[in-house]
Amino acid sequence: MTEGIELGPGAEFDLIRTMRLRLGPLAVGLGDDAAVLSAPRGEQVVLSVDAAIEGVHFRRDWLSLREIGYRAITAALSDLAAMAATPLGVLVALTLPGDDSGRDGSMAGELADGIGEAVKAASTVVIGGNVARGELLALNTTVVGSAFSPLRRSGARPGDFLYVTGALGAPATALRAFEKSEHPSQPVRARLAHPAARLAEARWLAARGAMAAIDISDGLAGDAKHLAAASSVDMEIQIERVPVFDGATKDDALSGGDEYELLVAARAPFSEDDFVERFSLPLTLVGRVVEGAGEVRFTHGGARVAPPPGYDHFTR
Amino acid sequence: MTEGIELGPGAEFDLIRTMRLRLGPLAVGLGDDAAVLSAPRGEQVVLSVDAAIEGVHFRRDWLSLREIGYRAITAALSDLAAMAATPLGVLVALTLPGDDSGRDGSMAGELADGIGEAVKAASTVVIGGNVARGELLALNTTVVGSAFSPLRRSGARPGDFLYVTGALGAPATALRAFEKSEHPSQPVRARLAHPAARLAEARWLAARGAMAAIDISDGLAGDAKHLAAASSVDMEIQIERVPVFDGATKDDALSGGDEYELLVAARAPFSEDDFVERFSLPLTLVGRVVEGAGEVRFTHGGARVAPPPGYDHFTR
Repeated sequence: MTEGIELGPGAEFDLIRTMRLRLGPLAVGLGDDAAVLSAPRGEQVVLSVDAAIEGVHFRRDWLSLREIGYRAITAALSDLAAMAATPLGVLVALTLPGDDSGRDGSMAGELADGIGEAVKAASTVVIGGNVARGELLALNTTVVGSAFSPLRRSGARPGDFLYVTGALGAPATALRAFEKSEHPSQPVRARLAHPAARLAEARWLAARGAMAAIDISDGLAGDAKHLAAASSVDMEIQIERVPVFDGATKDDALSGGDEYELLVAARAPFSEDDFVERFSLPLTLVGRVVEGAGEVRFTHGGARVAPPPGYDHFTR
Repeated sequence: MTEGIELGPGAEFDLIRTMRLRLGPLAVGLGDDAAVLSAPRGEQVVLSVDAAIEGVHFRRDWLSLREIGYRAITAALSDLAAMAATPLGVLVALTLPGDDSGRDGSMAGELADGIGEAVKAASTVVIGGNVARGELLALNTTVVGSAFSPLRRSGARPGDFLYVTGALGAPATALRAFEKSEHPSQPVRARLAHPAARLAEARWLAARGAMAAIDISDGLAGDAKHLAAASSVDMEIQIERVPVFDGATKDDALSGGDEYELLVAARAPFSEDDFVERFSLPLTLVGRVVEGAGEVRFTHGGARVAPPPGYDHFTR
């Protein structure tokens, strides 16, 4: 890893300089045409890209710029967690609105603080990016990681045990409060503003028999459906087992998005106690994988119940 | 490489399905949380991200959607050319405007045709992406490649020979015509709408002694300055040697952006004839690298002349 190279003139480079200064040692080698890295010998390279767009994924009157930066990068890193990959670096394509005092870099600086916090929490660095002017604030984040054997969505088989990390529902509850101009409780708000990418948790689970995983960004019901479709199986979820975050509703836990917890299918049960001891986070058996063609079945007390509504950026 | 996995329900997935269908074999493995690839043994992984945003980098009344898709991906691939890297894959984060009939996927389909044309021209594939709704059409493209020894901006040394590929100025000339509601000539328009990423050319040059390179996206003057700053040298450019595209002006050749030709510094001269024979494209000696602190000097007939104006998204 090298120090960033000398940058040429221009307002775009001034912004990059601002961000590099705020990121400090959390930014590596910015300024060349491309970032260069090496994957550990024998490991595969894992890549994902995720968008955080003003008015679609966040609102500036609900979250601070620092929180917006942190959350965008963490949401992207969560896709590496779903593959049980270890991050190698992050590239951020930033679109700054014309109404910003972009020239003085104040907005870029606050975003950089949140971006830095997120990469630090994941033990990684910013290795590249792009700055452009646009109508709305947007962060398109590319995450790069490596894994010897990446977890796939398609690895679930009938008989597998289905687990979720953490407790669900708070981000949806927080969003509903914001939409009604109410203030969510601090712990509920924090789950929306300051999620965690379950990177170490995913590697722990993969090392102990997890065969398929997805991060819960579209809601447990929706993401279980994605996992079921990719694995060509059905998923049976016992809704009375789904862990609900304190202050959230069961419906939000079942269908609310933006969780960034993991839904994992495993051939054999995990030791939930070992997981809690290691991560101070619950790991909960919520159902089983069964034969099927890609559907999710919900039960309560052993009886089949109606599915909760799905969650989709384009239909809500 | 694998077929794309089964996708779950939802309008976002419908759009991904549309794009996957249009891309055909040019899309690989879309639909998992992240893309997985292997770099050739011993090679480094090279990554870059580039933005194409409506109103900033393109206008829909000047270019077709297919051209917009082609150009966004080609501009991003050009950063791999600047490092003399071989593409391994492309990830596209697409923002589709709300005014689009996005649900039927017609816009996504036309963009996909251009994206497919660009990756095919570069002998690579689309390995991932994201689709979100936003105010304006935007493509944030991440390119991944590999190289045994990537070319850097910082590799130029005093005494090096400075070369450019191709002939310059046409994209700026085309843009000026569009801005005056005029029609640029077809060859001049094509240089803007349908640029080429000089990937094979860059590997040829790197194999024959190129030590530093940059792709000319901000204009020859501006990019020479970036190269000079990164290498802590001065660049001396003989403006009478700069190749001008037929129908463009010398000023546009010196300072117009969006070229995606290469500016290369090399320890020893290249055989320009061999290059032309191999690529049907001129390779021109335009100056030398000299001792200095990161400046670009322009000469004409041996006499120092004033620099052309720079080029910067944030100041023009």
